[in-house]
Formats: sequence, structure tokens, C-alpha cells
Amino acid sequence: MERYDIAIIGTGPAGLSAAITAKIRKKNVILFGSKASSVKVQKAHTVQNYLGLPNASGADLQQAFTAHLAAMEIAVTEEKITTVYPMGDYFSMQSSNNTIYEASAVILATGVTSAKAYPGETEYLGRGVSYCATCDAALYRGKTAAVIGANPDEEREAELLAQYAEKVYYLPLYAQEVNLPDTIEVIRETPTAIEGGFKVNALVTDKNRYEVDGVFVLRESVAAERLVTGLQTDGAHIPVDRSMATNLAGCFACGDVTGTPYQYIKAAGEGNVAALSAAAYLYALRREKKGSES
Amino acid sequence: MERYDIAIIGTGPAGLSAAITAKIRKKNVILFGSKASSVKVQKAHTVQNYLGLPNASGADLQQAFTAHLAAMEIAVTEEKITTVYPMGDYFSMQSSNNTIYEASAVILATGVTSAKAYPGETEYLGRGVSYCATCDAALYRGKTAAVIGANPDEEREAELLAQYAEKVYYLPLYAQEVNLPDTIEVIRETPTAIEGGFKVNALVTDKNRYEVDGVFVLRESVAAERLVTGLQTDGAHIPVDRSMATNLAGCFACGDVTGTPYQYIKAAGEGNVAALSAAAYLYALRREKKGSES
Repeated sequence: MERYDIAIIGTGPAGLSAAITAKIRKKNVILFGSKASSVKVQKAHTVQNYLGLPNASGADLQQAFTAHLAAMEIAVTEEKITTVYPMGDYFSMQSSNNTIYEASAVILATGVTSAKAYPGETEYLGRGVSYCATCDAALYRGKTAAVIGANPDEEREAELLAQYAEKVYYLPLYAQEVNLPDTIEVIRETPTAIEGGFKVNALVTDKNRYEVDGVFVLRESVAAERLVTGLQTDGAHIPVDRSMATNLAGCFACGDVTGTPYQYIKAAGEGNVAALSAAAYLYALRREKKGSES
Repeated sequence: MERYDIAIIGTGPAGLSAAITAKIRKKNVILFGSKASSVKVQKAHTVQNYLGLPNASGADLQQAFTAHLAAMEIAVTEEKITTVYPMGDYFSMQSSNNTIYEASAVILATGVTSAKAYPGETEYLGRGVSYCATCDAALYRGKTAAVIGANPDEEREAELLAQYAEKVYYLPLYAQEVNLPDTIEVIRETPTAIEGGFKVNALVTDKNRYEVDGVFVLRESVAAERLVTGLQTDGAHIPVDRSMATNLAGCFACGDVTGTPYQYIKAAGEGNVAALSAAAYLYALRREKKGSES
């Protein structure tokens, strides 16, 4: 399996800035996210304080960022990473396509989801709660499952799940029209809790209670504390030092996920620092390996 | 005297980003530096990693930055601040035009000068070493002084000094032709030390020794440790936390002066954070004052 130098998770300003800097430092990079940058960038109203791009709309920023990426010939791998395992001198990552990737260093630029975990979500993770339909759909053959989708992209996940499960409920967290086959029941209610005994047995909403065998919670990004095994977090944030290092050697973070202020230019600056710190880490790692071989 | 909310010292990417963010937060700002941004920006070769402005020359960045400033109607006060005194709940600042300014908060975005202090420079500061010809020229009536000029702007300072001093040596640290009246002796040698007894009596170069009563060391910015009374520094850098706070309440720092990596996008991101932290400090200061009045 190819082992990348640096895996970057997230394509908001922090992730893109990290990718550009890592590429300039001639690192072999894999960048996970969306070719259209991040939903937060796309939907931004006028941004006045991104120095050099005055009075920019979200679309202007998105265009400027993706053009920069194209100019540097950096590809985006449109997969969602659901789990990162530190393996000592490298990281193993599982994507929502059930593919495994490896990288010597990881940069987390996942942003923050304003959504808190639902009551029961963390408790039942792996016992009926899943963040990846592609990974776990086959476990629901002949069963009933609910999908909570934060954006229209997740409808494809629900469709896949419906090829296995006997019954699928789909709860969109967005206002746009849902485009799904009739076999999937769309429910316009607000999820409030996940309940069960040893395993999940119900999804509760503001109006009803649905008996289900599993709940797929599909947000744009997986919360940091559930994404990386052993990562120290502080609520929705990852504590970092001024070099953007987390508590795990080789794992760096940048952008909104490191804390307030949530600002594009702050995120871009931190991405740059994280990439340079990751490059320095790789250099030290290589020297250390050479040392132990000689 | 008008007391500004925030004084920002420096017009590189950190200072400009801070000014833009402070203006958006409706703070009354005074920005000290150059209308042409910073020499470091102007002279930059291609910058590839300023996200959103791919493959930019120094001139491109300068143009984008100054256009942003113009769009936000932010003026630059083209004076060099030579000393900052913390006065409790505000700061008093002296400029090279000998003007005094006051602000409730200060953001230091002075960059780093690669130049170290000359041997004797810190020792004789105020006893023959000066950073401001306009302030101290009158003290050299009938005396001999040397001016070390980091860039052609300093020639005007030497000219002013020559109106008082009997003899002025000018040592340019740049290669460009010097444009000065014949009364000033231009010396193309490298300064190496400032010497004296209780007060300065000589400037030593790589080739000669000049008997002088004073030495004016005119760099683009005054080193942080000599700029702000009581500021904690670490070599050429100012230690800051993630909010860009220094050891002095109300005094923030951003950009190269906070440490490596020296990168434009990192500096711009930090300027944004410093301005938001200064705004939060002002809010707390106002609440505290209200509390003590009631």
C-alpha cells in the first residue's frame, strides 16, 4: 500500500492552505474533502477581512481557493475519513468508501460542526450508531435503519443502505427538497436522542419514536473526539500549541477545529503552519529511523 | 489628546490584517507604517502559498493588500514609533516625528529585523545611541554623529541631523546610490561595534574607527525588546499565546515578530486573531471601568 507523507482531512481554507504549503515542500500529499472546498465557504456571505481579497462573497473565495489548488495541480480525494488510527510511526485511515489509506503524518482540518452529539450517540457508537453507510450497510440486511443527513450528499448513502436494509428512514437536516426513491421514508422531524438497551433500538425525534436497529449520523465531518483514536479534545475543539501540534506525535490540526475565532484567514494561516510543522516532523522521523538503523 | 482604541504598529500582512479586522469591529484605529505595506512584501519573489492569490509576486501582494486597505478606507500614518510606554489602562507612544499618541490597546506587527543589535548598542541606548534623529537631533548641536541607515528613507533623517550637528557620517546598509548633500560624508563600510566610556565616543567598522558623540541606528523597525517598556521577549521574538496576547495586558503581537515560520499567510491569520483579541480586551476594560464607577 502506498504510504503518503501527509494526509490532510478537510478542504476548507485550513486544509487547502496546508495542502499548498506541503506541495511546495515537495511532500507526497493526499487531501480528503470536496473539490468545491467546504460548505461553510460556499455559503459564506460577504467576507471583508480575508487580506488581499476585499469584499469577497463565499463564491468568490471558493473560486479563488479552488483556482489556487488547480494551479498547483493538487487533487482532492472526495472521500470522507471516518476513523484515524495512530500506528506508531504512521497513521491508518478508513474512508466512507471502506478504503484504507496510510500516511506518516496527518493534518486535521475538519472544521467544527455546530451540532453536538445526540444523547446516546457516543454511547452506542459501534453498537448501532455508525458514521459510514458504505462501511456498515451490509450489517443491516433485512433490518431497519435511520439515516440523519446533514446535507444532500448523504442521500446517496441512504440509497446504498436501502439496497440492504428492509426499511430506511431518512431525516434531512436541511431545507432543500430530498431526491430519493419511494422505498425510503423521508421524515421531516428533528432527531433528539438515540435509545436502546445493549444495542440501539430507537431513534427519538421531537414528534415521534422510531424503532430501528441502527442510526447513521452523517455530518460533513466526524467530530474530532470520535475521528482519531487517543486524540485529546476539549469539547468540539482540539488543543494545539503554536506549531499546531496535537497530543499525538505526527498529528497536527488547523482551522476552526482548533478553536475560535472562526475566521477564514486565521484558518489559512494555521494550515500553512501545520504543513510546515508536519514537514519538520517527517524530517525528524526520517533522521530517527536512519539513526536506529545504523 | 485623542485616545485611539487600538494602535497597530507595522504595515506588513499582520498589521494590515489586524487593521482590517479592527475596522470591521468598528474600532477607532491608528495604523503606523508605510502606505506601500512593508519592504519585505515589496521585495518578495514569487509567493506560491498565500491561499487565494496563486503565484503572486511581491508587487502583486503589495497591490492586493494596499487595494484592500483603500477599499476599507483605512489610512496609514507614515511615522515610525520608537517607544511604547504601558500606562495602566492605556499606552503612550512616541513617534520619530516626536509626536505622542495614546491608545487603549496596542498590536505589535513590526516584523523581525535580521540584524542583531551591534555590540554596545543596547548598552549605550540613551547615552549616545538613538533610534530617532527627529527626536534627538537638537542634542547634537556642534557635535559629530554617525547615522546607520537600513534603507533610503533614512537619508532624510541624516539631512535633518546635519542641520544641527557639525559633522555627520552616513553608513548606508543598502546598495542603492545615496542622495545626500556634500556636507554629509557617506561611508561604505560595515558597522561592527559602538564604543565609549560612560557615553558613546566611537563607531567601529570593518575598516576604520570613527570618533563620534552619537550613533543613530535607523532600521525599518525598532527591535521589540527596545520598543516596549516591560515587554517580555525571547531573542528577536515576542512570546504570545494562541490569542496573540503578550505578557502585558492590552498589548498583542502578530506576524514574524511572534516567531517562525516567517510566512505571509501565517502573519495575516495572526493579525486577524490579534485584532479580535484586542477588541475583546477593550470590551472587558470598559466593563471593568463601569463596574468600578458604579
